[in-house]
Amino acid sequence: MADRRFFPYAGPFRLAEIAEMTGAELRNCPDPSLEVTGVAALDRAVSGDLGFLENRRYLSALGETKASACFVAAAFVDRAPPELTLLVTDRPRRNFARISRLFHPEDRPEPGIHQSAIVADGVRLGEGCRVDAGAVIDADVEIGDGAWIGPNVVIGKGVTIGAGTRVDANASLSHCDIGARCLIYPGARVGQPGFGFEVDASGPLKMPQLGRVIIEDDVEVGANTTVDRGAGPDTVIGRGTMIDNLVQIGHNVEIGKGCIIVAQVGIAGSTKLEDYVVLGGQVGVAGHITIGTGAQVAAQSGVNKGVPAGARMGGSPTVPMREFRRQVAAVKALGRRVDKSDQEDN
Amino acid sequence: MADRRFFPYAGPFRLAEIAEMTGAELRNCPDPSLEVTGVAALDRAVSGDLGFLENRRYLSALGETKASACFVAAAFVDRAPPELTLLVTDRPRRNFARISRLFHPEDRPEPGIHQSAIVADGVRLGEGCRVDAGAVIDADVEIGDGAWIGPNVVIGKGVTIGAGTRVDANASLSHCDIGARCLIYPGARVGQPGFGFEVDASGPLKMPQLGRVIIEDDVEVGANTTVDRGAGPDTVIGRGTMIDNLVQIGHNVEIGKGCIIVAQVGIAGSTKLEDYVVLGGQVGVAGHITIGTGAQVAAQSGVNKGVPAGARMGGSPTVPMREFRRQVAAVKALGRRVDKSDQEDN
Amino acid sequence: MADRRFFPYAGPFRLAEIAEMTGAELRNCPDPSLEVTGVAALDRAVSGDLGFLENRRYLSALGETKASACFVAAAFVDRAPPELTLLVTDRPRRNFARISRLFHPEDRPEPGIHQSAIVADGVRLGEGCRVDAGAVIDADVEIGDGAWIGPNVVIGKGVTIGAGTRVDANASLSHCDIGARCLIYPGARVGQPGFGFEVDASGPLKMPQLGRVIIEDDVEVGANTTVDRGAGPDTVIGRGTMIDNLVQIGHNVEIGKGCIIVAQVGIAGSTKLEDYVVLGGQVGVAGHITIGTGAQVAAQSGVNKGVPAGARMGGSPTVPMREFRRQVAAVKALGRRVDKSDQEDN
Repeated sequence: MADRRFFPYAGPFRLAEIAEMTGAELRNCPDPSLEVTGVAALDRAVSGDLGFLENRRYLSALGETKASACFVAAAFVDRAPPELTLLVTDRPRRNFARISRLFHPEDRPEPGIHQSAIVADGVRLGEGCRVDAGAVIDADVEIGDGAWIGPNVVIGKGVTIGAGTRVDANASLSHCDIGARCLIYPGARVGQPGFGFEVDASGPLKMPQLGRVIIEDDVEVGANTTVDRGAGPDTVIGRGTMIDNLVQIGHNVEIGKGCIIVAQVGIAGSTKLEDYVVLGGQVGVAGHITIGTGAQVAAQSGVNKGVPAGARMGGSPTVPMREFRRQVAAVKALGRRVDKSDQEDN
Repeated sequence: MADRRFFPYAGPFRLAEIAEMTGAELRNCPDPSLEVTGVAALDRAVSGDLGFLENRRYLSALGETKASACFVAAAFVDRAPPELTLLVTDRPRRNFARISRLFHPEDRPEPGIHQSAIVADGVRLGEGCRVDAGAVIDADVEIGDGAWIGPNVVIGKGVTIGAGTRVDANASLSHCDIGARCLIYPGARVGQPGFGFEVDASGPLKMPQLGRVIIEDDVEVGANTTVDRGAGPDTVIGRGTMIDNLVQIGHNVEIGKGCIIVAQVGIAGSTKLEDYVVLGGQVGVAGHITIGTGAQVAAQSGVNKGVPAGARMGGSPTVPMREFRRQVAAVKALGRRVDKSDQEDN
Repeated sequence: MADRRFFPYAGPFRLAEIAEMTGAELRNCPDPSLEVTGVAALDRAVSGDLGFLENRRYLSALGETKASACFVAAAFVDRAPPELTLLVTDRPRRNFARISRLFHPEDRPEPGIHQSAIVADGVRLGEGCRVDAGAVIDADVEIGDGAWIGPNVVIGKGVTIGAGTRVDANASLSHCDIGARCLIYPGARVGQPGFGFEVDASGPLKMPQLGRVIIEDDVEVGANTTVDRGAGPDTVIGRGTMIDNLVQIGHNVEIGKGCIIVAQVGIAGSTKLEDYVVLGGQVGVAGHITIGTGAQVAAQSGVNKGVPAGARMGGSPTVPMREFRRQVAAVKALGRRVDKSDQEDN
């Protein structure tokens, strides 16, 4: 049960309502007017809760759950205990997510500008915006309807922010245009100058960084993640891309639609990710290369040259995943072989 | 000598007092009523200072130091110059730390709420709390006695903070309960939603994140470190665990007591660390695995499956440390062999 | 063309002026009194723009550019189309940077202390300083002429900041002295305690951290980067060193002049970098070692022992770059050999 200090509660809902909203088919359901009181994972659910089962790996939880109802794929219906009401659907997890949001709607406090916020002249705020305490918004910023600027956020001159976007606590934005329905997490830094130098005998000389950051609609930028502005071209993050915490996006990087960038990834300057690319945690990507549509790179890998569309890559430097697995096996064998001969030596 | 702009000074103390407080035995001490005026490493000490020697590796500093007194283990007494007063103890470093805190007590400014802090209705503040300028504390937050909320910190609705805990500049907390005597460093982010998606043809769809972060007593969370809240279960950090800077803790992660997590480590979702685990810098840990009590993982390693209690692991993917050292040696040999044949080719 | 919302425009300038300021020689120039209206990369330039060509790799852009003028090295003059006016110089990129700054001078807003800034008693501010909204400056801080303290920045007691230095949004400084003309990026954390413990059966005990951070002139500290203060000695960053985003600098680290530290590098405690060292992205450096003058370490490497001056290193653990390349080739061959025999097995 979600803690009501933190998550507003809008339940309960009747089984029949849930089935109707999701298109799921009710089974083992003596009374569709019975109410579900909450949502929870099967292994943590209590009586009255609604759970879900999508992955065969968690089948054992189905038999032992205390939940009263469960979204489940047709293939697993026979495995459920008879007293558990089932909501049969092709997409148990997605429907569970949807109903979870129904029980615990996102917490959007009242619109308004806190009296301690500092909003410069010439700022245009849409309808229903909220600006929290201590936020600082510089001249000529433009903020869309229903956007929410969190406490102690800093927004630099001329920035635009789309409708419904939330910028969370202590984040800072400059030299950028942010789309609609984005979520900028606490402490994210967007728009600072990129890391570009001319080096000679007297040391590094900073190059001017005269580009912007363009973030399209429905993007998430994780906590304490940094997105540098372009040097001349812009840094671009495509629609629906999800960026986790502590990620570094260098100047002039172009990221396509629907990419998933896991925590602590670093992408060097002028590199391009096409659509639906997935980078595992702590991956490093060199500058000036392209990663093709749908490519996936395993955690901790180092991408030092272009990756074709659809490829699965691993290692540092990266090779195709199949080859990487064999590298790992070969190096393991080497380590053990040496081990054996060592013991023979003793 | 610590810079008194930054570190309050409460000395001097007499040798006899120091010996009594620590249980150390005085040697080469013509006059126990003589005063020590400061604390310093042996190689940086000046006359009047107290140093310590614990590690054989620094024995040479003992002969050359300008310090007037030194905590030292019995084994090294004979190696000290005759004019250096010794405080013989089993724990030179720990006693040095203790006396250092005596000379330079932690700087706890006066209690009170700065007039520029924004404290919502319904916030409960214990006795002797301090809330610095620009801090923003949302409704129903509960803060224990003697806690210290730093400048421009943001604390979200309903959060609880234990007695004596300090939350340092620009940090932000939400959806969490923090124990007593914790130290949350500047810029740390605790309680934001975890990184969880349902992916299909239309791209990633965010899953609701309805859990909390539970931080037990005496925990440190480093500067700009990020701790995501649970998806349903909570993210938990056990008593006395120390987390360095720029670490990523994913949703649902459970960390036991007394763990040490060095800078830039990333721990993926739903992974469990039992007690006293040590992770070296930049280690990556995959999701949904367990690292057993007392296990230690070398810097930059990639942990992709469970680690037994007490194990010493290295490499990416990790293997037992002994095996990892042999892998490294074997790969080095390969690199050199190729090198040699290359040169023969020329 | 740089977006004038974000980058003030001071153009246009005549070709003759630009040639005179940079010492470049005009070629293919029918009329030196013609004006240049902007600066841009050759492949993005429009008519009226000035570009540059330094690297042979981009020669193809020279033939296709829409720019009206171009800084170019003498070697490439023959490759330029006849209608493109050339400014021949030994340093095309550096001169382009210089003229870019002329067209788009750095945006330094008016001096003054915002009424919402909290400046403690005893703070000394030089001439022409600017302190933005929500900044919190503690007692006895000293700030040099023309320094700029950004919105919601926090500066702890006794800190000194040199003339012309900028501390950007939401950064925090304590226990440190910052030189002149430095740039501290948004969210950077400087001066928090280092990560030092005495560990025994009862778990980790924090050691006092009684040193400072000393940052010399002309240093950049990247966004969300963390620089811990010394434990007794100071943490030092030398003149002209450039540190990218999300970097961790441990306690007692000494960095020389003109070093370049790319994003997500971690340097463990008490390590020394001599002058002009370059560390690639995500490099990890162990504690208590020295990296010699001018050494360069490839991205993602792990430096576990000292590196001689001028060396080029790669790998984890690092070896000389030439050897690393052979290791990579040998491991690749292993992965492929296994692959082949696998297929034979099938």
